[in-house]
Amino acid sequence: MSGTAIGTTRQEQERSRVTRQKLMTAAIEVLVEKGWAGATMGAIAERAGVSRGACQHHFPTRGALVAAAVEHVFRQQVEELVRRANGLPESRRRVEPLLNLLHDVYAGPLFTAATHLWVAAVADEELKAILLPLETQVGREVHRLTVELLGLDERDRDVRDAVRATLDLLRGLALANLLHDDTARRRKVLAHWARTLEAQLAPKRATQAD
Amino acid sequence: MSGTAIGTTRQEQERSRVTRQKLMTAAIEVLVEKGWAGATMGAIAERAGVSRGACQHHFPTRGALVAAAVEHVFRQQVEELVRRANGLPESRRRVEPLLNLLHDVYAGPLFTAATHLWVAAVADEELKAILLPLETQVGREVHRLTVELLGLDERDRDVRDAVRATLDLLRGLALANLLHDDTARRRKVLAHWARTLEAQLAPKRATQAD
Repeated sequence: MSGTAIGTTRQEQERSRVTRQKLMTAAIEVLVEKGWAGATMGAIAERAGVSRGACQHHFPTRGALVAAAVEHVFRQQVEELVRRANGLPESRRRVEPLLNLLHDVYAGPLFTAATHLWVAAVADEELKAILLPLETQVGREVHRLTVELLGLDERDRDVRDAVRATLDLLRGLALANLLHDDTARRRKVLAHWARTLEAQLAPKRATQAD
Repeated sequence: MSGTAIGTTRQEQERSRVTRQKLMTAAIEVLVEKGWAGATMGAIAERAGVSRGACQHHFPTRGALVAAAVEHVFRQQVEELVRRANGLPESRRRVEPLLNLLHDVYAGPLFTAATHLWVAAVADEELKAILLPLETQVGREVHRLTVELLGLDERDRDVRDAVRATLDLLRGLALANLLHDDTARRRKVLAHWARTLEAQLAPKRATQAD
């Protein structure tokens, strides 16, 4: 292969990557505004400024597109969460700021888009089949990450249940925050929850000596 | 007025009541299946077996119809909750069965319908204006009811925060239950939270001497 051919291939790969990202970002935006019923391939392609044909080339179905979009934005959010968590001071009082951080990352446009998808899937077996494995994977990863950020030992049953409850609480808080800014109420709930978690989990923390 | 005229009026009132109930039940069903975008007045009237004209006579807009439907089904669920809660044995270990009961009543078709509405309202100011007062009213009532069922004293700040957290947790669990039966995981989470609540609130229970 000549150098030019390789250069062209790289350019094509880069263009392809950019097009995919545009489509995934547009998919989340259109989902937030119009829900699953309104998030047609045409509407998403138009929002992304990409032709219908190019859209279909990258994602054969809108199911494949929204699944890829949810996963892509989820990865970005995990990166953001880890970066911001690393910026928190090491301290025994780290639980409350960590919970607020988890909420902030949790309750963004991805949550709104995902809620549209999840609720639409209740009456749509095809969409459900796409979302179930994604839900399992994302759920496991968020659980693992939360255990790690809180410095806990996952082998303890009480730890597992407390982390599960914490994530269910965060999901409920994100839902409560959909229609109006629920920050004042949420701060109280998370402060209360943090105190509860600290009292419960203090004896269970993984040794931080290493 | 003659007796016949009064009889006719009563029959008309009864017919009107039945038609309203049919429309409200149909509105929740259609919302669960098709979401806000698909829950047109035509689709709801058809499901209820009521003419478009009669539908419009009872509810001038679909916003008015779905708000009435959410409130109507909510009232029925509160009645069911109170009836089932009254059937629970009086005991200090009442918290866990009460939480499971709250979940069962919480996570039905009304929750799915309401989630469709709430998430659609994120990008729909008109719908948001209809739902916000409803959310406030339902939220307050569920809070008051939970305090009462748990036999707590609402004046205590810790009690208020613990009840808030409990309801946010239940909302999150209901969302997790949308796509698949999450019962096994949920039972563990609620058992864990019941133990936590019991330990936290035992000293705060309203005196049950009266």
